[in-house]
Amino acid sequence: MLAPQHPEWKTTQPFKAVLEGDMKAVGASGMKGLMEIIVATHSGMTAAEFEKTVSNWLATNTQPRFKRLYTECVYQPQLELLAYLRANEFKTFIVSGGGIQFMRPMTEKTYGIPPEQVVGSSAVSEFQIKDGKPALVRMPTIDFVNDKAGKPVGIYEHIGRRPILAFGNSDSDMQMIEYTLAGEGRRLGLFVHHTDAEREYAYDRNSHVGTLDKALDQAAAKDWIIVSMKDDWAQIFPDQK
Amino acid sequence: MLAPQHPEWKTTQPFKAVLEGDMKAVGASGMKGLMEIIVATHSGMTAAEFEKTVSNWLATNTQPRFKRLYTECVYQPQLELLAYLRANEFKTFIVSGGGIQFMRPMTEKTYGIPPEQVVGSSAVSEFQIKDGKPALVRMPTIDFVNDKAGKPVGIYEHIGRRPILAFGNSDSDMQMIEYTLAGEGRRLGLFVHHTDAEREYAYDRNSHVGTLDKALDQAAAKDWIIVSMKDDWAQIFPDQK
Repeated sequence: MLAPQHPEWKTTQPFKAVLEGDMKAVGASGMKGLMEIIVATHSGMTAAEFEKTVSNWLATNTQPRFKRLYTECVYQPQLELLAYLRANEFKTFIVSGGGIQFMRPMTEKTYGIPPEQVVGSSAVSEFQIKDGKPALVRMPTIDFVNDKAGKPVGIYEHIGRRPILAFGNSDSDMQMIEYTLAGEGRRLGLFVHHTDAEREYAYDRNSHVGTLDKALDQAAAKDWIIVSMKDDWAQIFPDQK
Repeated sequence: MLAPQHPEWKTTQPFKAVLEGDMKAVGASGMKGLMEIIVATHSGMTAAEFEKTVSNWLATNTQPRFKRLYTECVYQPQLELLAYLRANEFKTFIVSGGGIQFMRPMTEKTYGIPPEQVVGSSAVSEFQIKDGKPALVRMPTIDFVNDKAGKPVGIYEHIGRRPILAFGNSDSDMQMIEYTLAGEGRRLGLFVHHTDAEREYAYDRNSHVGTLDKALDQAAAKDWIIVSMKDDWAQIFPDQK
Protein backbone atom coordinates (compact mmCIF):
# COMPACT_ATOMS: atom_id res chain seq x y z
CA MET A 1 0.00 0.00 0.00
CA LEU A 2 1.46 3.34 -1.08
CA ALA A 3 -0.95 5.58 0.92
CA PRO A 4 1.44 6.39 3.81
CA GLN A 5 3.80 8.01 1.30
CA HIS A 6 0.96 10.17 0.00
CA PRO A 7 -0.74 12.07 2.85
CA GLU A 8 -2.44 14.33 0.28
CA TRP A 9 -4.57 11.37 -0.86
CA LYS A 10 -6.58 11.66 2.39
CA THR A 11 -8.06 14.95 1.23
CA THR A 12 -7.91 14.73 -2.57
CA GLN A 13 -10.49 12.98 -4.79
CA PRO A 14 -10.65 10.34 -6.15
CA PHE A 15 -8.02 9.02 -3.67
CA LYS A 16 -10.01 10.05 -0.60
CA ALA A 17 -12.97 7.98 -1.82
CA VAL A 18 -10.79 4.91 -2.33
CA LEU A 19 -9.22 5.16 1.13
CA GLU A 20 -12.68 5.58 2.68
CA GLY A 21 -14.12 2.68 0.67
CA ASP A 22 -16.65 5.03 -0.91
CA MET A 23 -17.14 3.18 -4.19
CA LYS A 24 -20.05 5.39 -5.24
CA ALA A 25 -17.77 8.44 -5.14
CA VAL A 26 -15.07 6.49 -6.99
CA GLY A 27 -17.61 5.66 -9.69
CA ALA A 28 -18.73 9.29 -9.87
CA SER A 29 -15.14 10.37 -10.55
CA GLY A 30 -15.58 8.70 -13.96
CA MET A 31 -13.01 7.08 -16.22
CA LYS A 32 -10.59 9.96 -15.66
CA GLY A 33 -10.82 9.46 -11.88
CA LEU A 34 -10.17 5.74 -12.25
CA MET A 35 -7.18 6.42 -14.50
CA GLU A 36 -5.80 8.87 -11.91
CA ILE A 37 -5.96 6.14 -9.29
CA ILE A 38 -4.32 3.51 -11.48
CA VAL A 39 -1.63 5.86 -12.74
CA ALA A 40 -0.72 7.17 -9.27
CA THR A 41 -0.68 3.77 -7.57
CA HIS A 42 1.43 2.01 -10.23
CA SER A 43 3.95 4.76 -10.91
CA GLY A 44 7.56 3.55 -11.01
CA MET A 45 6.69 0.00 -12.10
CA THR A 46 8.31 -1.36 -15.23
CA ALA A 47 6.15 -2.63 -18.10
CA ALA A 48 7.16 -6.20 -17.22
CA GLU A 49 6.27 -5.77 -13.53
CA PHE A 50 2.92 -4.20 -14.38
CA GLU A 51 2.08 -7.00 -16.81
CA LYS A 52 2.94 -9.62 -14.19
CA THR A 53 0.79 -7.87 -11.57
CA VAL A 54 -2.17 -7.76 -13.95
CA SER A 55 -1.75 -11.39 -15.04
CA ASN A 56 -1.58 -12.55 -11.42
CA TRP A 57 -4.66 -10.54 -10.51
CA LEU A 58 -6.63 -11.95 -13.45
CA ALA A 59 -5.56 -15.52 -12.67
CA THR A 60 -6.55 -15.40 -9.00
CA ASN A 61 -9.61 -13.13 -8.63
CA THR A 62 -13.14 -14.29 -9.31
CA GLN A 63 -16.20 -12.14 -9.93
CA PRO A 64 -18.18 -12.38 -6.64
CA ARG A 65 -21.65 -12.95 -8.07
CA PHE A 66 -20.83 -15.25 -10.99
CA LYS A 67 -18.01 -17.07 -9.20
CA ARG A 68 -15.78 -17.28 -12.23
CA LEU A 69 -12.64 -15.47 -13.34
CA TYR A 70 -13.16 -12.00 -14.79
CA THR A 71 -11.76 -13.30 -18.09
CA GLU A 72 -14.65 -15.80 -18.10
CA CYS A 73 -17.24 -13.05 -17.56
CA VAL A 74 -17.17 -12.16 -21.25
CA TYR A 75 -20.23 -12.31 -23.46
CA GLN A 76 -20.73 -15.36 -25.63
CA PRO A 77 -22.61 -13.37 -28.35
CA GLN A 78 -19.70 -10.93 -28.48
CA LEU A 79 -17.20 -13.79 -28.96
CA GLU A 80 -19.41 -15.21 -31.72
CA LEU A 81 -19.66 -11.82 -33.45
CA LEU A 82 -15.87 -11.32 -33.30
CA ALA A 83 -15.28 -14.80 -34.75
CA TYR A 84 -17.87 -14.19 -37.47
CA LEU A 85 -16.30 -10.87 -38.43
CA ARG A 86 -12.79 -12.35 -38.57
CA ALA A 87 -14.04 -15.26 -40.67
CA ASN A 88 -15.27 -12.60 -43.10
CA GLU A 89 -11.90 -10.80 -43.28
CA PHE A 90 -12.64 -8.06 -40.79
CA LYS A 91 -9.84 -7.04 -38.45
CA THR A 92 -11.16 -6.72 -34.89
CA PHE A 93 -10.10 -4.24 -32.20
CA ILE A 94 -11.01 -3.43 -28.61
CA VAL A 95 -11.53 0.28 -27.91
CA SER A 96 -12.14 0.67 -24.19
CA GLY A 97 -11.93 3.32 -21.48
CA GLY A 98 -9.93 0.79 -19.45
CA GLY A 99 -6.16 0.93 -19.20
CA ILE A 100 -4.48 -0.27 -22.39
CA GLN A 101 -1.74 -2.13 -20.49
CA PHE A 102 -4.29 -3.62 -18.11
CA MET A 103 -6.24 -5.18 -20.98
CA ARG A 104 -3.40 -6.40 -23.14
CA PRO A 105 -2.29 -9.39 -21.02
CA MET A 106 -5.69 -11.03 -21.55
CA THR A 107 -7.22 -9.86 -24.82
CA GLU A 108 -5.55 -12.39 -27.11
CA LYS A 109 -6.54 -15.45 -25.10
CA THR A 110 -9.98 -14.09 -24.18
CA TYR A 111 -11.11 -12.35 -27.36
CA GLY A 112 -8.57 -13.43 -30.01
CA ILE A 113 -7.42 -9.81 -30.21
CA PRO A 114 -3.61 -9.30 -30.09
CA PRO A 115 -2.02 -6.51 -27.98
CA GLU A 116 -1.46 -4.22 -30.96
CA GLN A 117 -5.22 -4.20 -31.67
CA VAL A 118 -6.13 -2.87 -28.22
CA VAL A 119 -6.90 0.84 -27.75
CA GLY A 120 -7.35 2.19 -24.23
CA SER A 121 -6.47 4.83 -21.66
CA SER A 122 -2.79 5.13 -20.82
CA ALA A 123 -0.15 6.43 -18.46
CA VAL A 124 2.95 8.22 -19.69
CA SER A 125 5.86 5.80 -19.79
CA GLU A 126 9.56 6.48 -20.09
CA PHE A 127 12.47 4.47 -21.50
CA GLN A 128 15.14 4.02 -18.82
CA ILE A 129 18.11 1.80 -18.13
CA LYS A 130 17.10 0.13 -14.84
CA ASP A 131 19.52 -2.25 -13.07
CA GLY A 132 21.59 -2.21 -16.25
CA LYS A 133 18.69 -3.32 -18.47
CA PRO A 134 16.49 -1.29 -20.86
CA ALA A 135 13.01 -0.92 -19.37
CA LEU A 136 9.80 1.03 -19.84
CA VAL A 137 8.85 2.70 -16.57
CA ARG A 138 5.38 4.02 -15.70
CA MET A 139 5.23 7.72 -14.79
CA PRO A 140 2.69 9.29 -12.38
CA THR A 141 0.92 11.10 -15.23
CA ILE A 142 -2.10 10.29 -17.37
CA ASP A 143 -1.20 10.20 -21.06
CA PHE A 144 -4.63 9.71 -22.59
CA VAL A 145 -8.22 9.04 -21.50
CA ASN A 146 -9.91 6.88 -24.13
CA ASP A 147 -13.46 7.80 -23.25
CA LYS A 148 -16.32 9.72 -24.87
CA ALA A 149 -14.82 12.21 -27.39
CA GLY A 150 -11.45 10.54 -26.68
CA LYS A 151 -12.53 7.29 -28.36
CA PRO A 152 -12.52 8.53 -31.97
CA VAL A 153 -9.16 10.17 -31.17
CA GLY A 154 -7.78 6.88 -29.81
CA ILE A 155 -9.04 5.10 -32.94
CA TYR A 156 -7.43 7.72 -35.21
CA GLU A 157 -4.14 7.53 -33.33
CA HIS A 158 -3.90 3.74 -33.01
CA ILE A 159 -5.81 2.37 -35.98
CA GLY A 160 -5.64 5.25 -38.43
CA ARG A 161 -8.83 4.36 -40.26
CA ARG A 162 -12.51 4.62 -39.57
CA PRO A 163 -14.31 1.52 -38.27
CA ILE A 164 -17.00 -0.14 -40.38
CA LEU A 165 -18.84 -1.54 -37.37
CA ALA A 166 -18.65 -0.34 -33.76
CA PHE A 167 -20.31 -1.89 -30.74
CA GLY A 168 -20.70 -0.10 -27.39
CA ASN A 169 -22.80 -0.28 -24.24
CA SER A 170 -22.94 3.24 -22.76
CA ASP A 171 -23.16 6.95 -23.53
CA SER A 172 -19.34 6.95 -23.49
CA ASP A 173 -19.49 5.15 -26.83
CA MET A 174 -21.68 7.68 -28.64
CA GLN A 175 -18.86 9.67 -30.25
CA MET A 176 -17.13 6.47 -31.42
CA ILE A 177 -20.33 5.30 -33.07
CA GLU A 178 -21.08 8.73 -34.57
CA TYR A 179 -17.58 8.76 -36.07
CA THR A 180 -18.06 5.22 -37.40
CA LEU A 181 -21.39 5.96 -39.08
CA ALA A 182 -20.13 9.23 -40.63
CA GLY A 183 -17.96 7.27 -43.06
CA GLU A 184 -18.96 6.46 -46.63
CA GLY A 185 -20.59 3.18 -47.60
CA ARG A 186 -22.40 0.73 -45.33
CA ARG A 187 -21.69 1.09 -41.60
CA LEU A 188 -23.17 -0.36 -38.44
CA GLY A 189 -23.47 1.09 -34.92
CA LEU A 190 -24.70 -1.09 -32.05
CA PHE A 191 -25.32 -0.61 -28.32
CA VAL A 192 -25.92 -3.42 -25.85
CA HIS A 193 -28.60 -2.45 -23.35
CA HIS A 194 -28.09 -4.25 -20.03
CA THR A 195 -31.70 -5.33 -19.46
CA ASP A 196 -31.20 -8.71 -17.84
CA ALA A 197 -31.16 -8.49 -14.03
CA GLU A 198 -31.57 -12.24 -13.78
CA ARG A 199 -28.74 -13.49 -15.97
CA GLU A 200 -26.50 -10.40 -15.75
CA TYR A 201 -27.50 -6.84 -14.70
CA ALA A 202 -30.17 -4.30 -15.57
CA TYR A 203 -29.20 -0.63 -15.61
CA ASP A 204 -29.31 2.37 -17.90
CA ARG A 205 -30.29 6.02 -17.33
CA ASN A 206 -29.64 6.36 -13.61
CA SER A 207 -26.53 4.22 -13.25
CA HIS A 208 -23.33 5.94 -12.04
CA VAL A 209 -21.22 3.52 -14.05
CA GLY A 210 -21.92 2.65 -17.66
CA THR A 211 -24.77 5.17 -17.99
CA LEU A 212 -26.94 4.54 -21.07
CA ASP A 213 -29.26 7.51 -21.37
CA LYS A 214 -28.72 9.92 -24.26
CA ALA A 215 -27.92 7.00 -26.55
CA LEU A 216 -31.39 5.55 -25.91
CA ASP A 217 -33.01 8.91 -26.73
CA GLN A 218 -31.03 9.44 -29.92
CA ALA A 219 -30.93 5.87 -31.23
CA ALA A 220 -33.90 5.98 -33.59
CA ALA A 221 -32.95 9.32 -35.17
CA LYS A 222 -29.31 8.29 -35.63
CA ASP A 223 -29.78 4.72 -36.89
CA TRP A 224 -28.18 3.18 -33.83
CA ILE A 225 -29.36 -0.34 -33.08
CA ILE A 226 -30.09 -1.09 -29.41
CA VAL A 227 -29.55 -4.76 -28.57
CA SER A 228 -31.50 -5.93 -25.51
CA MET A 229 -29.49 -8.41 -23.52
CA LYS A 230 -32.64 -10.00 -22.08
CA ASP A 231 -34.59 -10.31 -25.32
CA ASP A 232 -31.90 -10.75 -27.95
CA TRP A 233 -29.21 -12.90 -26.33
CA ALA A 234 -29.84 -16.64 -25.97
CA GLN A 235 -26.73 -17.07 -23.86
CA ILE A 236 -24.77 -14.53 -21.79
CA PHE A 237 -21.50 -16.14 -20.67
CA PRO A 238 -19.50 -18.90 -22.35
CA ASP A 239 -20.08 -22.36 -20.88
CA GLN A 240 -18.07 -22.73 -17.70
CA LYS A 241 -14.62 -24.11 -18.40
CA MET B 1 0.95 30.17 -46.68
CA LEU B 2 0.11 30.80 -43.03
CA ALA B 3 3.18 32.95 -42.20
CA PRO B 4 1.44 36.39 -42.36
CA GLN B 5 -0.84 35.25 -39.52
CA HIS B 6 2.20 34.28 -37.42
CA PRO B 7 4.63 37.23 -37.14
CA GLU B 8 6.42 35.41 -34.28
CA TRP B 9 7.69 32.81 -36.77
CA LYS B 10 10.14 35.42 -38.15
CA THR B 11 12.12 35.32 -34.92
CA THR B 12 11.39 31.85 -33.50
CA GLN B 13 13.24 28.67 -34.50
CA PRO B 14 12.63 26.38 -36.31
CA PHE B 15 10.13 28.65 -38.15
CA LYS B 16 12.72 31.38 -38.80
CA ALA B 17 14.96 28.85 -40.56
CA VAL B 18 12.14 27.67 -42.82
CA LEU B 19 11.14 31.21 -43.82
CA GLU B 20 14.78 32.02 -44.57
CA GLY B 21 15.28 28.79 -46.51
CA ASP B 22 18.04 27.76 -44.10
CA MET B 23 17.67 23.99 -44.47
CA LYS B 24 20.82 23.30 -42.45
CA ALA B 25 19.27 25.05 -39.44
CA VAL B 26 16.00 23.21 -40.02
CA GLY B 27 17.92 19.92 -39.98
CA ALA B 28 19.75 20.95 -36.81
CA SER B 29 16.41 21.49 -35.06
CA GLY B 30 16.01 17.70 -35.18
CA MET B 31 12.89 15.57 -35.34
CA LYS B 32 11.21 17.68 -32.65
CA GLY B 33 11.84 20.85 -34.70
CA LEU B 34 10.40 19.22 -37.80
CA MET B 35 7.34 18.10 -35.87
CA GLU B 36 6.86 21.64 -34.53
CA ILE B 37 6.80 22.91 -38.11
CA ILE B 38 4.36 20.27 -39.33
CA VAL B 39 2.06 20.62 -36.33
CA ALA B 40 1.94 24.43 -36.46
CA THR B 41 1.42 24.66 -40.22
CA HIS B 42 -1.35 22.04 -40.40
CA SER B 43 -3.31 23.00 -37.31
CA GLY B 44 -7.09 23.19 -37.84
CA MET B 45 -7.13 20.68 -40.72
CA THR B 46 -9.42 17.69 -40.41
CA ALA B 47 -7.98 14.18 -40.64
CA ALA B 48 -9.59 13.81 -44.07
CA GLU B 49 -8.13 17.10 -45.36
CA PHE B 50 -4.68 16.23 -44.04
CA GLU B 51 -4.79 12.79 -45.68
CA LYS B 52 -5.82 14.34 -49.00
CA THR B 53 -3.01 16.91 -48.81
CA VAL B 54 -0.44 14.18 -48.13
CA SER B 55 -1.76 11.90 -50.87
CA ASN B 56 -1.69 14.75 -53.40
CA TRP B 57 1.85 15.69 -52.39
CA LEU B 58 3.06 12.09 -52.70
CA ALA B 59 1.37 11.63 -56.08
CA THR B 60 2.86 14.77 -57.65
CA ASN B 61 6.34 15.35 -56.18
CA THR B 62 9.41 13.55 -57.41
CA GLN B 63 12.73 13.18 -55.62
CA PRO B 64 15.03 15.63 -57.49
CA ARG B 65 18.09 13.40 -57.88
CA PHE B 66 16.42 10.07 -58.61
CA LYS B 67 13.56 11.60 -60.60
CA ARG B 68 10.95 9.26 -59.25
CA LEU B 69 8.14 9.59 -56.72
CA TYR B 70 9.19 9.50 -53.06
CA THR B 71 7.10 6.32 -52.68
CA GLU B 72 9.38 4.75 -55.32
CA CYS B 73 12.54 5.75 -53.43
CA VAL B 74 12.16 2.80 -51.07
CA TYR B 75 14.79 0.11 -50.72
CA GLN B 76 14.34 -3.11 -52.64
CA PRO B 77 16.20 -5.19 -49.97
CA GLN B 78 13.87 -3.77 -47.33
CA LEU B 79 10.80 -4.76 -49.35
CA GLU B 80 12.27 -8.25 -49.78
CA LEU B 81 12.99 -8.56 -46.06
CA LEU B 82 9.45 -7.44 -45.16
CA ALA B 83 7.95 -9.96 -47.61
CA TYR B 84 10.22 -12.71 -46.28
CA LEU B 85 9.25 -11.98 -42.68
CA ARG B 86 5.53 -11.93 -43.47
CA ALA B 87 5.84 -15.20 -45.40
CA ASN B 88 7.25 -16.62 -42.15
CA GLU B 89 4.36 -15.40 -40.00
CA PHE B 90 5.97 -12.25 -38.68
CA LYS B 91 3.79 -9.17 -38.36
CA THR B 92 5.63 -6.12 -39.72
CA PHE B 93 5.49 -2.53 -38.46
CA ILE B 94 7.04 0.83 -39.36
CA VAL B 95 8.43 2.76 -36.38
CA SER B 96 9.60 6.13 -37.64
CA GLY B 97 10.32 9.62 -36.36
CA GLY B 98 8.14 10.88 -39.20
CA GLY B 99 4.54 11.96 -38.66
CA ILE B 100 2.23 8.97 -38.21
CA GLN B 101 -0.54 10.57 -40.27
CA PHE B 102 1.93 11.61 -42.95
CA MET B 103 3.10 8.01 -43.44
CA ARG B 104 -0.21 6.19 -43.25
CA PRO B 105 -1.63 7.18 -46.65
CA MET B 106 1.24 5.38 -48.37
CA THR B 107 2.52 2.55 -46.19
CA GLU B 108 0.05 -0.11 -47.27
CA LYS B 109 0.65 0.33 -50.99
CA THR B 110 4.39 0.94 -50.64
CA TYR B 111 5.42 -1.50 -47.89
CA GLY B 112 2.40 -3.77 -47.44
CA ILE B 113 1.99 -2.31 -43.94
CA PRO B 114 -1.56 -1.21 -43.02
CA PRO B 115 -2.23 2.09 -41.14
CA GLU B 116 -2.70 0.40 -37.77
CA GLN B 117 0.85 -1.01 -37.97
CA VAL B 118 2.49 2.41 -38.35
CA VAL B 119 4.09 4.08 -35.31
CA GLY B 120 5.27 7.68 -35.60
CA SER B 121 5.32 11.18 -34.18
CA SER B 122 1.94 12.82 -33.76
CA ALA B 123 -0.02 16.00 -33.22
CA VAL B 124 -2.82 16.23 -30.67
CA SER B 125 -6.16 15.83 -32.41
CA GLU B 126 -9.65 16.58 -31.18
CA PHE B 127 -13.07 15.15 -31.99
CA GLN B 128 -15.40 17.95 -33.15
CA ILE B 129 -18.65 18.36 -35.04
CA LYS B 130 -17.57 20.45 -38.02
CA ASP B 131 -20.15 21.66 -40.56
CA GLY B 132 -22.57 19.22 -38.93
CA LYS B 133 -20.31 16.21 -39.42
CA PRO B 134 -18.09 14.37 -36.90
CA ALA B 135 -14.44 15.12 -37.65
CA LEU B 136 -10.99 14.77 -36.16
CA VAL B 137 -9.26 18.15 -36.14
CA ARG B 138 -5.50 18.71 -35.79
CA MET B 139 -4.48 20.92 -32.84
CA PRO B 140 -1.35 23.16 -32.79
CA THR B 141 0.35 20.92 -30.22
CA ILE B 142 2.81 18.04 -30.46
CA ASP B 143 1.41 14.89 -28.89
CA PHE B 144 4.44 12.59 -29.16
CA VAL B 145 7.92 12.58 -30.70
CA ASN B 146 8.72 9.03 -31.77
CA ASP B 147 12.49 9.43 -31.81
CA LYS B 148 15.46 8.09 -29.78
CA ALA B 149 14.16 7.10 -26.30
CA GLY B 150 10.66 7.81 -27.63
CA LYS B 151 10.79 4.84 -30.01
CA PRO B 152 10.53 2.06 -27.39
CA VAL B 153 7.74 4.11 -25.79
CA GLY B 154 5.90 4.36 -29.12
CA ILE B 155 6.32 0.61 -29.59
CA TYR B 156 4.99 -0.10 -26.09
CA GLU B 157 2.03 2.21 -26.58
CA HIS B 158 1.04 1.11 -30.10
CA ILE B 159 2.21 -2.49 -30.35
CA GLY B 160 2.31 -3.57 -26.72
CA ARG B 161 4.94 -6.24 -27.21
CA ARG B 162 8.67 -6.28 -27.78
CA PRO B 163 9.94 -6.67 -31.35
CA ILE B 164 11.91 -9.76 -32.32
CA LEU B 165 13.81 -7.97 -35.08
CA ALA B 166 14.38 -4.23 -35.46
CA PHE B 167 16.07 -2.46 -38.35
CA GLY B 168 17.28 1.15 -38.17
CA ASN B 169 19.68 3.49 -39.93
CA SER B 170 20.77 6.14 -37.40
CA ASP B 171 21.64 6.81 -33.77
CA SER B 172 17.96 7.66 -33.27
CA ASP B 173 17.28 3.93 -33.53
CA MET B 174 19.68 2.81 -30.78
CA GLN B 175 17.14 2.71 -27.95
CA MET B 176 14.64 0.81 -30.11
CA ILE B 177 17.27 -1.79 -30.92
CA GLU B 178 18.52 -2.00 -27.31
CA TYR B 179 14.94 -2.60 -26.20
CA THR B 180 14.47 -5.25 -28.89
CA LEU B 181 17.61 -7.17 -27.97
CA ALA B 182 16.88 -7.06 -24.22
CA GLY B 183 14.04 -9.54 -24.68
CA GLU B 184 14.35 -13.27 -24.06
CA GLY B 185 15.10 -15.73 -26.85
CA ARG B 186 16.65 -15.00 -30.23
CA ARG B 187 16.55 -11.37 -31.35
CA LEU B 188 18.12 -9.39 -34.16
CA GLY B 189 19.20 -5.75 -34.36
CA LEU B 190 20.31 -4.25 -37.69
CA PHE B 191 21.50 -0.84 -38.89
CA VAL B 192 21.83 0.18 -42.53
CA HIS B 193 24.97 2.23 -43.05
CA HIS B 194 24.55 4.64 -45.98
CA THR B 195 27.90 3.99 -47.68
CA ASP B 196 26.90 4.26 -51.32
CA ALA B 197 27.45 7.78 -52.70
CA GLU B 198 27.09 6.47 -56.23
CA ARG B 199 23.79 4.61 -56.06
CA GLU B 200 22.28 6.48 -53.07
CA TYR B 201 24.15 8.57 -50.44
CA ALA B 202 27.16 8.19 -48.15
CA TYR B 203 26.99 9.78 -44.70
CA ASP B 204 27.39 8.86 -41.07
CA ARG B 205 29.21 10.56 -38.17
CA ASN B 206 29.14 14.17 -39.31
CA SER B 207 25.74 14.32 -40.94
CA HIS B 208 23.16 16.72 -39.46
CA VAL B 209 20.34 14.44 -40.52
CA GLY B 210 20.35 10.70 -39.87
CA THR B 211 23.60 10.78 -37.88
CA LEU B 212 25.14 7.33 -37.48
CA ASP B 213 27.98 7.71 -34.99
CA LYS B 214 27.56 6.13 -31.55
CA ALA B 215 25.85 3.13 -33.12
CA LEU B 216 29.00 2.43 -35.16
CA ASP B 217 31.16 2.64 -32.03
CA GLN B 218 28.94 0.38 -29.96
CA ALA B 219 27.89 -2.13 -32.63
CA ALA B 220 30.48 -4.84 -31.95
CA ALA B 221 30.04 -4.80 -28.16
CA LYS B 222 26.25 -4.84 -28.39
CA ASP B 223 25.78 -7.45 -31.15
CA TRP B 224 24.33 -4.93 -33.57
CA ILE B 225 24.81 -5.86 -37.22
CA ILE B 226 25.88 -3.02 -39.51
CA VAL B 227 24.69 -3.54 -43.09
CA SER B 228 26.74 -1.65 -45.67
CA MET B 229 24.56 -0.38 -48.46
CA LYS B 230 27.45 -0.35 -50.90
CA ASP B 231 28.84 -3.78 -50.11
CA ASP B 232 25.78 -5.76 -49.07
CA TRP B 233 22.96 -4.57 -51.29
CA ALA B 234 22.83 -5.82 -54.90
CA GLN B 235 20.02 -3.43 -55.74
CA ILE B 236 18.93 -0.19 -54.03
CA PHE B 237 15.57 0.90 -55.50
CA PRO B 238 12.84 -1.26 -57.04
CA ASP B 239 12.86 -1.36 -60.83
CA GLN B 240 11.24 1.77 -62.18
CA LYS B 241 7.50 1.30 -62.61
